[in-house]
Amino acid sequence: MTTTASSATPAFVAVDWGTSSFRAWLMAADGTELAETRGSEGMLHCATSGFAPVLHDHLGKLRAPAELPVLICGMAGARQGWIEAPYLHTPTRLDALHAGAIRVETGGDVRILPGLAQARTDRPDVMRGEETQLLGVTEPDFSGTVCIPGTHSKWIRIESGAVVGFATYMTGELFAVISQHSILMHAVEPNASSEGGAAFRAGLETALAAPTSLTNALFRVRAAQLLGFEQRAEGAARLSGLLIGSEIVDAHARFGAAYPVRLIGAGRLGRLYREALAASGFDVSECDAEQASRRGLIKAARQIWGARF
Amino acid sequence: MTTTASSATPAFVAVDWGTSSFRAWLMAADGTELAETRGSEGMLHCATSGFAPVLHDHLGKLRAPAELPVLICGMAGARQGWIEAPYLHTPTRLDALHAGAIRVETGGDVRILPGLAQARTDRPDVMRGEETQLLGVTEPDFSGTVCIPGTHSKWIRIESGAVVGFATYMTGELFAVISQHSILMHAVEPNASSEGGAAFRAGLETALAAPTSLTNALFRVRAAQLLGFEQRAEGAARLSGLLIGSEIVDAHARFGAAYPVRLIGAGRLGRLYREALAASGFDVSECDAEQASRRGLIKAARQIWGARF
Repeated sequence: MTTTASSATPAFVAVDWGTSSFRAWLMAADGTELAETRGSEGMLHCATSGFAPVLHDHLGKLRAPAELPVLICGMAGARQGWIEAPYLHTPTRLDALHAGAIRVETGGDVRILPGLAQARTDRPDVMRGEETQLLGVTEPDFSGTVCIPGTHSKWIRIESGAVVGFATYMTGELFAVISQHSILMHAVEPNASSEGGAAFRAGLETALAAPTSLTNALFRVRAAQLLGFEQRAEGAARLSGLLIGSEIVDAHARFGAAYPVRLIGAGRLGRLYREALAASGFDVSECDAEQASRRGLIKAARQIWGARF
Repeated sequence: MTTTASSATPAFVAVDWGTSSFRAWLMAADGTELAETRGSEGMLHCATSGFAPVLHDHLGKLRAPAELPVLICGMAGARQGWIEAPYLHTPTRLDALHAGAIRVETGGDVRILPGLAQARTDRPDVMRGEETQLLGVTEPDFSGTVCIPGTHSKWIRIESGAVVGFATYMTGELFAVISQHSILMHAVEPNASSEGGAAFRAGLETALAAPTSLTNALFRVRAAQLLGFEQRAEGAARLSGLLIGSEIVDAHARFGAAYPVRLIGAGRLGRLYREALAASGFDVSECDAEQASRRGLIKAARQIWGARF
């Protein structure tokens, strides 16, 4: 899909290149989006077909002028991606991200932003892509907690504009593998919505009340249906409540609720987290996930090429 | 496989018919095994091919005399099994299991023992097969806690010979689906042993120290390898330690360590649990899982047909 929104002068191309998706925007110097393109050619796809042709194809769809700078965030910078953009290690200021960008040896000025690593043996953790969203939604002196739900949900503590610690929860991926590959496949309808409602809240409350019992609570989703207490139609929402609740109760203990939480979410998942965070006593404000990526890419691009815009 | 051990008079056939396995023994009245047969024709197999021909085939391998009574435990009695043997509800005495046996309409006297259900809306749970192992390893006035590790690990509180409560943990199944279908497939070697050792103990200690952090600790298995802190060869043992530790820390809180624990285990898994239970402060005694099933079937058979033996 390609849309053209304005005739202002293009300054650079912003690319969010994830594991299984590609999104790019033709950007004006003032941060206006001039055109957009999306595809399913994520890192996994490109690892076999190559990255340069995919980028070239999408630049064509955006009608980007030749030699326009390109700034990329996400898994394209992983070791198994296009070229490795080595992790910046925490603690690190978000406005230093641009300094870690790696230039790709290809036509034009194409750079990939680095991910972040928490290189502590007791809490090893990594992110790629979310650091750009963080840059996008925070002011230079921001202090607080950010929650980015997803396949691998991230919780990040930021102090005075620097990421000082973070934790990844396998919430979204566990939902998928448990509902598709475990005995709970009989307790969750395929392609069921895990939209909120009573079953979601019940799962959430179970997790908040007994936060060490997850692997037992999962089996009880099946047992409750076998015993006629619950319906299969409720299974997905209940499983979602259990997993999101398990994440939030641990994050609450680790990151505290003293700071307000910025939730970088979108659509259904954003709504579920907003409900769950509020139920857990967090003060929440929301930002859109795609807008966060774009804003982070603009900020970094201005630091890299601002004089040329 | 069929082995013949003695020429004593056969009294009945004991069958442990699980989800994916079939085991039967030709038994003398005094509890001696006279012959054994095993196969992979579990409930899932028989749901399409039928149960009667499989039993008939194995009775032939055992050279069981015609019309010898047959007593079955396990998933053959599930709703989706041969014939449903409705659950006995907790609290229930284990020596009342035989009274819930359902006779199958087939040649000879073939009966299936019931499973147990904890029909509480706040803690719904079910078992099929383990109740017979419990009968096998407990005296009529037994009080204590029993742990049965496996795909779906069970923890059972027994008071004066009656099951008063139990909990199922999806430990073994989560190990399988996470190591085969999630991003941890890159962090766990296929068919790797999760035998004990330093990585198993490290996973265990992580779970015991931070029992609400499982879904974060899982991701850290991957992150630690990306950052060069751990090796892929250690991944399976670490994952196993995390999941078994999560089970045990919750069971410890729920069932307490005041009573000694009887561990019904076998082989590698039994050794892992023994180590983990000891590390968690439990006083453990062990019983063999197959022997437990056989002894439970013998006890129940004597109650049903004792006068005829």
